[in-house]
Amino acid sequence: MSGSQPRGVVSPRRPVLLVAKELRDRVELPKLGTSLPIHVAGLSVAVVGLGILISAVVESVVAGPDVAALWLLGLASTVVGLLAWQLTSIPKPVRVLDVFITVTVAWSTMAVAGALPYLVTGHFDSVIDALFESVSGFTTTGATVTADIPATSRGLLMWRSTTQWIGGMGVIVLVVAVLPTVGAGGMSLLQAEAPGPTGERLTPRVRETAKRLWGVYIGLTVIMAVAYVVAGMSVFDGVNHSFTTVSTGGFSPHQASLGHFDSTAVEWVAVVGMVLAGGNFTLYYRALRRNPQPLLRSTELRLYLAVVAGVGLWCFLVAGSGDGSSAGFRDAMFMATSTVTTTGYVTSEYGQWSQAAQAMLLMVLPIGAMAGSTAGGVKIIRVLSAASFTHREALKQLHPRLVRSVRLGRGGVLPEDVAGRVVAFMMLSLVIFGGGALLIAASGSGMITSFSASATALGNVGPGFGDLDHGGDFRVIHPFGRLVAMVQMVLGRLEIYPVILALSVVTLRAPNAARRLRERA
Amino acid sequence: MSGSQPRGVVSPRRPVLLVAKELRDRVELPKLGTSLPIHVAGLSVAVVGLGILISAVVESVVAGPDVAALWLLGLASTVVGLLAWQLTSIPKPVRVLDVFITVTVAWSTMAVAGALPYLVTGHFDSVIDALFESVSGFTTTGATVTADIPATSRGLLMWRSTTQWIGGMGVIVLVVAVLPTVGAGGMSLLQAEAPGPTGERLTPRVRETAKRLWGVYIGLTVIMAVAYVVAGMSVFDGVNHSFTTVSTGGFSPHQASLGHFDSTAVEWVAVVGMVLAGGNFTLYYRALRRNPQPLLRSTELRLYLAVVAGVGLWCFLVAGSGDGSSAGFRDAMFMATSTVTTTGYVTSEYGQWSQAAQAMLLMVLPIGAMAGSTAGGVKIIRVLSAASFTHREALKQLHPRLVRSVRLGRGGVLPEDVAGRVVAFMMLSLVIFGGGALLIAASGSGMITSFSASATALGNVGPGFGDLDHGGDFRVIHPFGRLVAMVQMVLGRLEIYPVILALSVVTLRAPNAARRLRERA
Repeated sequence: MSGSQPRGVVSPRRPVLLVAKELRDRVELPKLGTSLPIHVAGLSVAVVGLGILISAVVESVVAGPDVAALWLLGLASTVVGLLAWQLTSIPKPVRVLDVFITVTVAWSTMAVAGALPYLVTGHFDSVIDALFESVSGFTTTGATVTADIPATSRGLLMWRSTTQWIGGMGVIVLVVAVLPTVGAGGMSLLQAEAPGPTGERLTPRVRETAKRLWGVYIGLTVIMAVAYVVAGMSVFDGVNHSFTTVSTGGFSPHQASLGHFDSTAVEWVAVVGMVLAGGNFTLYYRALRRNPQPLLRSTELRLYLAVVAGVGLWCFLVAGSGDGSSAGFRDAMFMATSTVTTTGYVTSEYGQWSQAAQAMLLMVLPIGAMAGSTAGGVKIIRVLSAASFTHREALKQLHPRLVRSVRLGRGGVLPEDVAGRVVAFMMLSLVIFGGGALLIAASGSGMITSFSASATALGNVGPGFGDLDHGGDFRVIHPFGRLVAMVQMVLGRLEIYPVILALSVVTLRAPNAARRLRERA
Repeated sequence: MSGSQPRGVVSPRRPVLLVAKELRDRVELPKLGTSLPIHVAGLSVAVVGLGILISAVVESVVAGPDVAALWLLGLASTVVGLLAWQLTSIPKPVRVLDVFITVTVAWSTMAVAGALPYLVTGHFDSVIDALFESVSGFTTTGATVTADIPATSRGLLMWRSTTQWIGGMGVIVLVVAVLPTVGAGGMSLLQAEAPGPTGERLTPRVRETAKRLWGVYIGLTVIMAVAYVVAGMSVFDGVNHSFTTVSTGGFSPHQASLGHFDSTAVEWVAVVGMVLAGGNFTLYYRALRRNPQPLLRSTELRLYLAVVAGVGLWCFLVAGSGDGSSAGFRDAMFMATSTVTTTGYVTSEYGQWSQAAQAMLLMVLPIGAMAGSTAGGVKIIRVLSAASFTHREALKQLHPRLVRSVRLGRGGVLPEDVAGRVVAFMMLSLVIFGGGALLIAASGSGMITSFSASATALGNVGPGFGDLDHGGDFRVIHPFGRLVAMVQMVLGRLEIYPVILALSVVTLRAPNAARRLRERA
């Protein structure tokens, strides 16, 4: 609709988008070629640039040391990204494989662009460290290799939080909102990036869906920022924590994470915020549009809340802090929420809890919250689907000729092919978890450290156990192990398939293409 | 065939079976009722009695302290078992559920009968300990709660090994060989107990299949006993270790397990024996009958050998013993074989190995060797099936309308319903592993100890990590945790379904039956 508007008519309601559109329409750059990956990656880098500019503004306000670097990088990223976007066009038709390659390329490019602020300001000497912090941010993992958070400039801290905020709802969802229609490819892009096996359309138009999701996301961010400030945080802390709460990211501008505030109010606000961020944003939008039935009737929502409560109660009962106090209850519920929603905030010395409490938290690390939320992990709906599938197969042992569909909550039925895809996904996750843990262990970490590093990276959570029981400080892990964890974070965030399929097909096709070229010559 | 032989004609080739048959035919006890569970459990207990009598003979030869107790128990078990067998008959038709209940009841009864020698001789004071040792034996796990093995009488040590030997091939396979034909139910019984998703019939007659499997098993036992004695063991040690090698059990009459002998020859003999015991006995029988093709072409066999070699090499390369010596290589290959075949012998201080080596061993604990072997675990064929299934589903992501079957090795195709059952089985295993680990942790063990206790019990291996890194001495675990591990051993040995289905159906039906009775009244 807006694409067919007469030029020059600027609606006051969305000036930024239209100024960008104006620019694009007026400048009329020549197209150098068609490439979906470069097109989308370009726009993503431009978004990264805007994020860096926000940090530059913050740094200017507090007159920090990194003002020049952040302004420069922000402008450069924005310009380079916009150029790459404008100099390419979208091929038609868009194939499934293109979508997978595009998502993988866009995320890799963003990771590199997002690492530059850390490198240019001298925050990290090591390229791997800068990439790690950037990947951990965009994937909303929240693991960190920053040695001294209090000594880090406000601008960079803001940038850390912003990477999570951009990555939470997914930059590609944002990009799709801006892109001219790409037909069926747009929906595929959304699905390839969106957490969980959702892909439910709010409207027939992909761009509208993307915009609405971002609308809910921004609304929730504002509410959380206000709530944090009301609970006693400074505006800077409130904005940072709202960014990393709604994205289930977990970065904090304080070394002690949310424990820094030592405030019951702040902690309960965070619990509510994390629970909300772990819910399905599509259902939220519908509920806001006076259609709360899908939300209230959601089996996944109930199971999600039950898992949070169950894990919290288990931790409270077996944590062994022994006093059974309300503080102990709050600590238990906080860690359960933080872990299940894959946020990764920390308030207590959970590394001192009983082994049974830690074992429970370790095992729910890879589960994650609802599909369609900003959370990582395999998602509750997949766990439910796999459980229902397993139950059906067990019944078949008793009644070999049983014909029964896989049931999913109230009267819902899971098609066989979806059920197969879900259990395959879970097994693939298991293999990547195991392989990652072995490689991290081979880099020299202990078993619990390695297992939890692998799980926390793949589940995009952040903190771990063993040497990682202090809020996910990955400096205790050898750089090779961190590299493994970085790959796992991206695999976890993009839910594995886009990355491995893009890589495997490209790898398999490259020799074939080379052979064909040789044969022709 | 032998069932239709004229009475009194005793073939010299199998006198024992025919003497039993003679006895049964002559005595002609009245039937008190029809019950497959009691019928099969009775015969199983009689077999247990015969096993105890073997131990009594050994104890008599060395004039040990437990002569009277073992003779008494052996005779009592044999008589009680035979009576229960003779006083009941088999109902027709046999339903699937009957089979599951029968296997579960028979194994539970055996576990209790097998615990009596430990209790009556005063070897254990605790009933739980005696049950644990018995269950660990029959399930061929090899975990132990015996405090002082050198102080244990020869007869009891022999009994420990014998429980594993009986449990290895499966007492029900033996029982089926003796039972008169039970129609389709016999094959179901075999399948419900036999490790792995096999059920391949060597002949159309179930009894013949069972006898042939036991024939190969006994043959391998004799060969291994001779090999061990040639390698330098005493006859007692040779027989004990051959019993626990071919059953992939892992009990040893020495505190230091096979490390006691400190002999390269003994260790390599054990490696070969364990690898053989982890192979498919049906394929062995065919190969002996001059049809070696199925064995040589088995994809599962190749993968099994590759897994053993791969795990061994990984341990050798990362174990961190650092000397790269032939002793280090032998230690690594030994532990890899012992773990993958789920035997559980120990020769080295693997608890001192690098974390990466231990993590690898921990992760292969639940895998197990070939289907149709005596090994525990989920079996290589299931891992292969699940991997092939996952690969197919990944391809479907790229080509949504792809129609492709799940492939299994050379041109083999896995039917969809079998593939579904396999992946469901793996997920069920995962849940039981996780739940068990949590409960063991809640009983007070550390995380690594709990995870490895759960995995080693469910996989029927024996040794673990953490506090369990000395050959599976479960005394470090709280009695409640041991109880959990016992349940897991039985679940692992019977491959989950018979137990949970029998329990769940009985539990669900009991209230229904009670309600129906009330309604009638």
